[in-house]
Amino acid sequence: MIQEIMIQTKRRDEMLDITVQVEEILLRENVQNGLVVVYSAHTTAGITINENADPDVQKDILRRLDEIYPRDDAKDRHLEGNSAAHLKTSTVGASQMIIVRDGKLLLGRWQGIYFCEFDGPRRRTCYVKILK
Amino acid sequence: MIQEIMIQTKRRDEMLDITVQVEEILLRENVQNGLVVVYSAHTTAGITINENADPDVQKDILRRLDEIYPRDDAKDRHLEGNSAAHLKTSTVGASQMIIVRDGKLLLGRWQGIYFCEFDGPRRRTCYVKILK
Amino acid sequence: MIQEIMIQTKRRDEMLDITVQVEEILLRENVQNGLVVVYSAHTTAGITINENADPDVQKDILRRLDEIYPRDDAKDRHLEGNSAAHLKTSTVGASQMIIVRDGKLLLGRWQGIYFCEFDGPRRRTCYVKILK
Repeated sequence: MIQEIMIQTKRRDEMLDITVQVEEILLRENVQNGLVVVYSAHTTAGITINENADPDVQKDILRRLDEIYPRDDAKDRHLEGNSAAHLKTSTVGASQMIIVRDGKLLLGRWQGIYFCEFDGPRRRTCYVKILK
Repeated sequence: MIQEIMIQTKRRDEMLDITVQVEEILLRENVQNGLVVVYSAHTTAGITINENADPDVQKDILRRLDEIYPRDDAKDRHLEGNSAAHLKTSTVGASQMIIVRDGKLLLGRWQGIYFCEFDGPRRRTCYVKILK
Repeated sequence: MIQEIMIQTKRRDEMLDITVQVEEILLRENVQNGLVVVYSAHTTAGITINENADPDVQKDILRRLDEIYPRDDAKDRHLEGNSAAHLKTSTVGASQMIIVRDGKLLLGRWQGIYFCEFDGPRRRTCYVKILK
């Protein structure tokens, strides 16, 4: 009962709405009630739940996170140069859980599930685990 | 087995201790062991677990989050003007989970469950899902 | 099915890799498939999932969090003087969940589970709950 969502990101920082992919897994597995865990298998990309209506919210989130955790920081020691991406990932979190009721994700009216790329573009994997 | 907690917030930013409401649901459902998921159905309000003793901790948390994510930011594009609230929500998270042991929430001595309002006052909904 | 991991931290801010301890619990309990919840019972210490290869990532994370949430802040009201630690804890989160597949933690290649001390040194407790 573990499914994978494969994602090809296109920018360094990007929020990709994966709500439909998670819903498709629910349908395929015929889950009526339970809990879904959406998990990013990466340390420079996380999962968050946020607004699905105005795409400007995503732009503001990514820009402000980048101001708080700037890519370049002379004090960083990590040679790969992506410590900011690691910090952003720990801030939003590696995973989110969503309740399932009557076969549907129990999301609020404006909530979508987002894969948050912080060090792209890359090929990424999300695991989806359903607890019935 | 999904319960709702209805909340009327009174300020723009506010941390409301909902531990007792979650405990009441445990009692009502007669849950002895398992996991409780507390989920905010909103994109400008989240859930966190933090200190339940000195209310000044909540004041410091809200004030500092507001300094990091100021309400007004000339670069924000989102016309509703509440991008800071969306960022605060993704920072604390939309949900928290708490282990249940022998009919009780397995919280640490100083831990309480907080509903975090970041764009109030509003009428809000929390979902509580119990996994036995 | 609730296990405890006891931790003695040595510094004020510290990220301790507890992946092996969680794996040992899986083996001892003979869990093949399910979900593991790793939970910090504290309000000034959390759990995060991040890079397990270069220890400089942890140094950068701790240093940058300390710049964003400085220990001393003249506006803080909390007399204990550790509001920054409470903020760091709510930022990384009190708990993380990891999927279990075929008896193993389904972590990404570079992911480790970290206990994050933000107000040490102290004796700390983590709860590990397995959902089969």
